[in-house]
Amino acid sequence: MASKSMHDLFVDQLQDAYSAETQLTKALPQMAKAATNPELRAGFQQHLTETEGQVKRLEQIAKELNIKMTSMMGMSAANTCEAMEGLIAEGQEVMGLGLDGDVQDAGLIAAAQKVEHYEIAMYGCLCTWAKRLGYSTAQTLLHQTLEEEKRTDEKLTRLAESQVNRQAAAK
Amino acid sequence: MASKSMHDLFVDQLQDAYSAETQLTKALPQMAKAATNPELRAGFQQHLTETEGQVKRLEQIAKELNIKMTSMMGMSAANTCEAMEGLIAEGQEVMGLGLDGDVQDAGLIAAAQKVEHYEIAMYGCLCTWAKRLGYSTAQTLLHQTLEEEKRTDEKLTRLAESQVNRQAAAK
Repeated sequence: MASKSMHDLFVDQLQDAYSAETQLTKALPQMAKAATNPELRAGFQQHLTETEGQVKRLEQIAKELNIKMTSMMGMSAANTCEAMEGLIAEGQEVMGLGLDGDVQDAGLIAAAQKVEHYEIAMYGCLCTWAKRLGYSTAQTLLHQTLEEEKRTDEKLTRLAESQVNRQAAAK
Repeated sequence: MASKSMHDLFVDQLQDAYSAETQLTKALPQMAKAATNPELRAGFQQHLTETEGQVKRLEQIAKELNIKMTSMMGMSAANTCEAMEGLIAEGQEVMGLGLDGDVQDAGLIAAAQKVEHYEIAMYGCLCTWAKRLGYSTAQTLLHQTLEEEKRTDEKLTRLAESQVNRQAAAK
């Protein structure tokens, strides 16, 4: 097999990110629907809008660098981000446990924070590689998304600590 | 379906963590073998030892709280942590891309950081819940693991920035 460069790794991981985000746009409405805390529900809805914007940023990067996002023309199994599949399956597992409303909210926050942390690692690496490769527009766009993911994670922590966990632990 | 409490959510996520860590003990030796940077290889080997210790901590918590870890007696599909399955599959995907050695190292670091971030979110939630539930021994043990995961992630960042990414970008 021919030796492949950092650009190839960047492309592979960008395609993975694209698959991850598009999967997430389908999962977030379910999570919003399952949330009982109004602030959590609104948070999931807001993050859906953000995620749609993040998908657009990835498409912009792909266009700029002439990268084909296979999944833009119909996702094939080979391009599906398996980690995000598993993360979403975990969220669905929480919804299927028959938990009390507040407790389920705590579980949904945990599932969402796993997703956010996964994405923080993903965009952190992509951002660093874009910098190394001299892809400055990509770097700027990836950094914007990275900051959004960090803010979402912090918001979830605050919500868990200020409301959800206290109510859930009382059950 | 009967309403379930925060303890039930804690048990479910503890079993998930146990599945995740036992899966990781099988994946880390492969990642160590695939790493070309000696420091990265040693890091994976060291984290394998840590992960084995983390598995023991989870067993100690389960014993303390009289929680049955189904996977301790043979993992069934229902108890398999699907997110970790996906994360490991991603690492294997990187190894199958036919990348140049240094570039593959950069990809392995990314895969490992996704795993670490997933675990940081997982142990962060478990730790908070243990505190809320008054499980003080569990809280202490989970906190020790959480700190180990954070240190591992920081070490990977340092290694990527100081050596691997620079070498990989030159390819």
